[in-house]
Amino acid sequence: MSRSGGIEEEWERRERSGLEIEKKAVVENDNSSSKEASTEKAFENEIVPSWKEQLTFRAFLASAVLSVAFCFIVMKLSLTTGIIPSLNVAAGLLGFFFIRVYSFALQKFGLLKQPFSRQENTVIQTAVVAASGIAFSSGYGSYILGMMPKIASQAEDGNTVNNMKPLSLGWMYGFVFAVSFVGLFSIVPLRKIMIIDYKLTYPSGTATAFLINSFHTSKGAKLAKKQVNKLFEWFSMSFLWAFFQWFFTSSDGCGFSSFPTFGLQAFNKRLYFDFSATYVGVGMICPYIVNVSLLVGAILSWLIMWPLIEQKKGIWYAADISGIFISIAMILGDGLFHVVCMLITTGWSLMRQYKKRDSSSVVAIAGDQPSSDSTHDREESYDDQRRKDMFLKDQIPMWVAGLGYVSLSAISIVAVPQIFHQIKWYHILVSYIIAPILAFCNSYGCGLTDWSLASTYGKIAIFIIGSWVGLHGGGIVAGLVACGVMMSIVSTASDLMQDFKTGYLTLASPRAMFCSQVMGTALGCLIAPAVFWFYYKSYPTLGEVDGSFPAPYGLMYRGIAILGVEGTSSLPRHCVELSVGFFCIAIALNIVTLLLEKYDKKWRLHRFVPRAMCMAIPFYLGGYFAIDMCIGSLILYLWRWKNKAGADALAPAVASGMICGDSLWGIPAAILSLANVNPPLCMKFLPASANAKVDAFLNG
Amino acid sequence: MSRSGGIEEEWERRERSGLEIEKKAVVENDNSSSKEASTEKAFENEIVPSWKEQLTFRAFLASAVLSVAFCFIVMKLSLTTGIIPSLNVAAGLLGFFFIRVYSFALQKFGLLKQPFSRQENTVIQTAVVAASGIAFSSGYGSYILGMMPKIASQAEDGNTVNNMKPLSLGWMYGFVFAVSFVGLFSIVPLRKIMIIDYKLTYPSGTATAFLINSFHTSKGAKLAKKQVNKLFEWFSMSFLWAFFQWFFTSSDGCGFSSFPTFGLQAFNKRLYFDFSATYVGVGMICPYIVNVSLLVGAILSWLIMWPLIEQKKGIWYAADISGIFISIAMILGDGLFHVVCMLITTGWSLMRQYKKRDSSSVVAIAGDQPSSDSTHDREESYDDQRRKDMFLKDQIPMWVAGLGYVSLSAISIVAVPQIFHQIKWYHILVSYIIAPILAFCNSYGCGLTDWSLASTYGKIAIFIIGSWVGLHGGGIVAGLVACGVMMSIVSTASDLMQDFKTGYLTLASPRAMFCSQVMGTALGCLIAPAVFWFYYKSYPTLGEVDGSFPAPYGLMYRGIAILGVEGTSSLPRHCVELSVGFFCIAIALNIVTLLLEKYDKKWRLHRFVPRAMCMAIPFYLGGYFAIDMCIGSLILYLWRWKNKAGADALAPAVASGMICGDSLWGIPAAILSLANVNPPLCMKFLPASANAKVDAFLNG
Repeated sequence: MSRSGGIEEEWERRERSGLEIEKKAVVENDNSSSKEASTEKAFENEIVPSWKEQLTFRAFLASAVLSVAFCFIVMKLSLTTGIIPSLNVAAGLLGFFFIRVYSFALQKFGLLKQPFSRQENTVIQTAVVAASGIAFSSGYGSYILGMMPKIASQAEDGNTVNNMKPLSLGWMYGFVFAVSFVGLFSIVPLRKIMIIDYKLTYPSGTATAFLINSFHTSKGAKLAKKQVNKLFEWFSMSFLWAFFQWFFTSSDGCGFSSFPTFGLQAFNKRLYFDFSATYVGVGMICPYIVNVSLLVGAILSWLIMWPLIEQKKGIWYAADISGIFISIAMILGDGLFHVVCMLITTGWSLMRQYKKRDSSSVVAIAGDQPSSDSTHDREESYDDQRRKDMFLKDQIPMWVAGLGYVSLSAISIVAVPQIFHQIKWYHILVSYIIAPILAFCNSYGCGLTDWSLASTYGKIAIFIIGSWVGLHGGGIVAGLVACGVMMSIVSTASDLMQDFKTGYLTLASPRAMFCSQVMGTALGCLIAPAVFWFYYKSYPTLGEVDGSFPAPYGLMYRGIAILGVEGTSSLPRHCVELSVGFFCIAIALNIVTLLLEKYDKKWRLHRFVPRAMCMAIPFYLGGYFAIDMCIGSLILYLWRWKNKAGADALAPAVASGMICGDSLWGIPAAILSLANVNPPLCMKFLPASANAKVDAFLNG
Repeated sequence: MSRSGGIEEEWERRERSGLEIEKKAVVENDNSSSKEASTEKAFENEIVPSWKEQLTFRAFLASAVLSVAFCFIVMKLSLTTGIIPSLNVAAGLLGFFFIRVYSFALQKFGLLKQPFSRQENTVIQTAVVAASGIAFSSGYGSYILGMMPKIASQAEDGNTVNNMKPLSLGWMYGFVFAVSFVGLFSIVPLRKIMIIDYKLTYPSGTATAFLINSFHTSKGAKLAKKQVNKLFEWFSMSFLWAFFQWFFTSSDGCGFSSFPTFGLQAFNKRLYFDFSATYVGVGMICPYIVNVSLLVGAILSWLIMWPLIEQKKGIWYAADISGIFISIAMILGDGLFHVVCMLITTGWSLMRQYKKRDSSSVVAIAGDQPSSDSTHDREESYDDQRRKDMFLKDQIPMWVAGLGYVSLSAISIVAVPQIFHQIKWYHILVSYIIAPILAFCNSYGCGLTDWSLASTYGKIAIFIIGSWVGLHGGGIVAGLVACGVMMSIVSTASDLMQDFKTGYLTLASPRAMFCSQVMGTALGCLIAPAVFWFYYKSYPTLGEVDGSFPAPYGLMYRGIAILGVEGTSSLPRHCVELSVGFFCIAIALNIVTLLLEKYDKKWRLHRFVPRAMCMAIPFYLGGYFAIDMCIGSLILYLWRWKNKAGADALAPAVASGMICGDSLWGIPAAILSLANVNPPLCMKFLPASANAKVDAFLNG
């Protein structure tokens, strides 16, 4: 992976020379070798609509309808279990069917003007994901709920008037509008670096793009047809498998997702294969080193470090809390390193440009630098070239992003302390200064591993701002507010980049995508509080442990806030030292990689250095998904070993099918759950001794 | 499938013209098309040893050692759970390794004279299977145990001196020698009909042969190498899968074998997929119609009939007992039909031969009839031709079989009543008159479906002889003795034919196989009682429910005997009528098939008539293995649909690998069980409501 600079100028240049590039692409098109596996070849004859044409009224209509549906689903899930499936795939799929039905109806009356393009499909998917993302990041199942007096009364400490806030629709609307849009502008300038230069995989986004491409492939292309067939084959299998699994999960700890594949001891250390088609598919899309890094991280933390720490301390939550902090420290280390690198290369590139001012080819050199960098080790395929050109065609100017971020932050800095007197303007200001770095870290990690850790960053914000404000100043509410500010930015940023990846692969215009994101966010801000209010008023037991809407995360977030107001003293001993250590390790790993990359051209050992970002994630999540993903890697490896060409052509389709099928089951599952239809069976795993007891109990 | 007669003469002719045929085969060899997938091509250059050369000392030694080991395993299993895995594969495999080590040692000292041939391997496998078969059919875990006073005292009725027999090594040796050899002679003359004319599959035998062939294939042949690779690939996977499954079966009702794949209701009706690689493999070897018939039988009985019967009666054992009777009635109907058909065609052929006495080509015509019959619809492949020739080369003369059966029966008729005064000579005589038909039925059914129902026939014998003698005459012991007589014959007959199939596919001489069977049986008769006596004396709690050797079948067999002495009145109402009805249905199905075969040349509808024999088996066993086998069929069907040539060449290897791997796990599993190492986990399936209770219970 090559890391290159000179981005800002690039945008400008591309902005101007967009049309030329498109022409060039069309010419190259004919010259590129036709032997190669190519998706875009299948779309050769289709004209890509302009960015304005991609934003149609019907797309807006579809987005609005689906957004309402998805907000209900997300809200219900976050108020019951708190676990929310990835909705990208479902949004893409349902968007497609919605427009198909709509077009069909219009066609009947002769009113259809424009054919349905895959770019339009991507636009719908983006808006719906953005809207349902708000339903999650607005925190009605987590931090907002944690302010409620009812939840406060469930906790032992911090039960003062200053540390709770009764809910009201008014301030909730104010807050959600104040904080939700900032994130969109936070890292949008970095999209070229992340998508094109870093070539981040964003497995869910890639899978969604594959699905959308499949829907719109005309029947001509042979390979494309084969890919589509494979995709739907695995889509169906994965969907049916998820459906089958559902029957055996009548409660927590039941079913295949709790399968102690390597024994109960390993299971308790969160090392097991959980039969999730999603993560096996994700593993097939991610590079080997990512999956191996995850596994190394899982083994290092859960098999070596946590047992050692727990042995030393004897405090049950030690590993849990330390895990979060160490993990974030490592991610920050990795992220900061990349940010610094990025700044240095950009600065250097600018300087070089300044020196060569007399040369007439300044813009071209500075602008082309990244592309030639990223392709120096292999010829770019037709697909890559075409996608890159389309992706760089419609730009979002740098000043729009900057101005947007600054002005929206300013509004938020003024507005939020008006709503919550516990938090001060400088707390929010600090948050907005740190946020872009965290947003970058999260997007980067999500691109590598498909994990968005938005809620984790939110928890860190709770802790830091909470301890800053202190209990008497209303630190609990202040922490929870800071959590909202941070989560909105970080979560939106990774969603946005995930969608940009989808757009990149479906040739959707980034400008259209961005508009769609803004529209989706607005929809989400309108819908989400209303939906929450509906549940809140309909179910008075909401938030009570025994009710049908326990919303477990409400109390959990408040718990972290309570811990936060007690300051670092409440952390397990040596937690801070450990975090600093791992922060340094992350930076060291990056330096080692960089040095190896530069000086070891022979063995190319840098390929085998684990990625700090990836190692960090299993630190507190556990290794189960790392095992899934490594199994995906293994499958891909064996497949490539048997039939390299076949694997390279079809593996992304298979992986996408697996991810999409499994994800789509999330929708019927959520609907079943909404209708209170519970799985009939529990597949339970008991040690032999416990089983004997249970048998005796069941037999009377 | 063609059914032909003229067998007896054939043997005589082949006996004389064996050498000519062999020469003919060698000539044909060169002419046969080399395009075809052929296993025997790979062995072309190897000389098949004569039948005497196949019976080596080292083979005897290996058989003896392995027989002792296997007798221990079988005895332990029948005294604990009563479930005994198929040992064919393990015997073939261990025989191979034994001889390899032995040869290696001899070679070191320059003492090796004869290379190890696959025929010798088959001979060892046959002897070991025969010996361990005795350990099962001698009934130390079932009917012999049922005579013990200790077991008698556990039952409520029939607790009189006349109805029990204290164990003693003396009479046990006498009995086992008296009854065990008869079975070998019962249907040995029918081997050509069953193996060559009916082309019965005998899945376990086929799989074992594939494995043995694989071990002995030289590296030259390309397809053979591919097959060997596939076999070992699936062998490993199946073995590992069985190993993995083991961890989750800490007690009954745990693990994948109790997976309620289609829900608990279907599971209670014994309709579920139990993830058994063995039966999926068996399903891939068996013809589609066999698997479909099994499924039809399972649905007919468990989804329609039993619920109806149980509704009417309200007696819990109604379906259970009726199932056995109806099932046996159907099998008998099918079997008898074939016996009668066989007799008619043989008689007709004899008559024709008599009429054409003046013609010089009498013998040739009568002799060739079956071969031309069985090949009239397709050209015989090189493999088929070569195997057939070798199989028909060394004969066991008809008079040997006849004389053996009559004289051994006579000995048994005299000896058994001396040991058990409760049974009279005419009871035994009747048993020996009926036995060959039952033996044929069992061999035939086993050839179709891989299920040997020896113990079921034994249960029927208990019932009939028990009710004939009556309680006061000691009917319980008499019934159990009759069970032994019947089981020995029926079980030996199907083992023998299974081994003949293996021999057929490995070009082993039937004469050598038969000698090996006799030798194995003798070994079994010597070893089995001694091994039982060892357990009996070492574990005084043997036979007690709470002990480590509960031997559940002892009490069960005695229970059937108690039911038997009460006569048909103890049967559920209408059981006899139902049985007669199904007997007739079986015959009717056969007649329909025959008529369709004769008169419907256009649609060939006869292919779609279900087989009575197959439909009958799930009647009381349930449908789970039918589902496994249908999944095997489905896999084969899809595979052939995708790649017919590939599937035809490799499917038997894959299926054999699946069967062999799963079966072989039986050995380590048995050893673990002998060492009292129990699986650590239980994968349990609970309804949601029960699960809630269990969770509450486990949490205190």
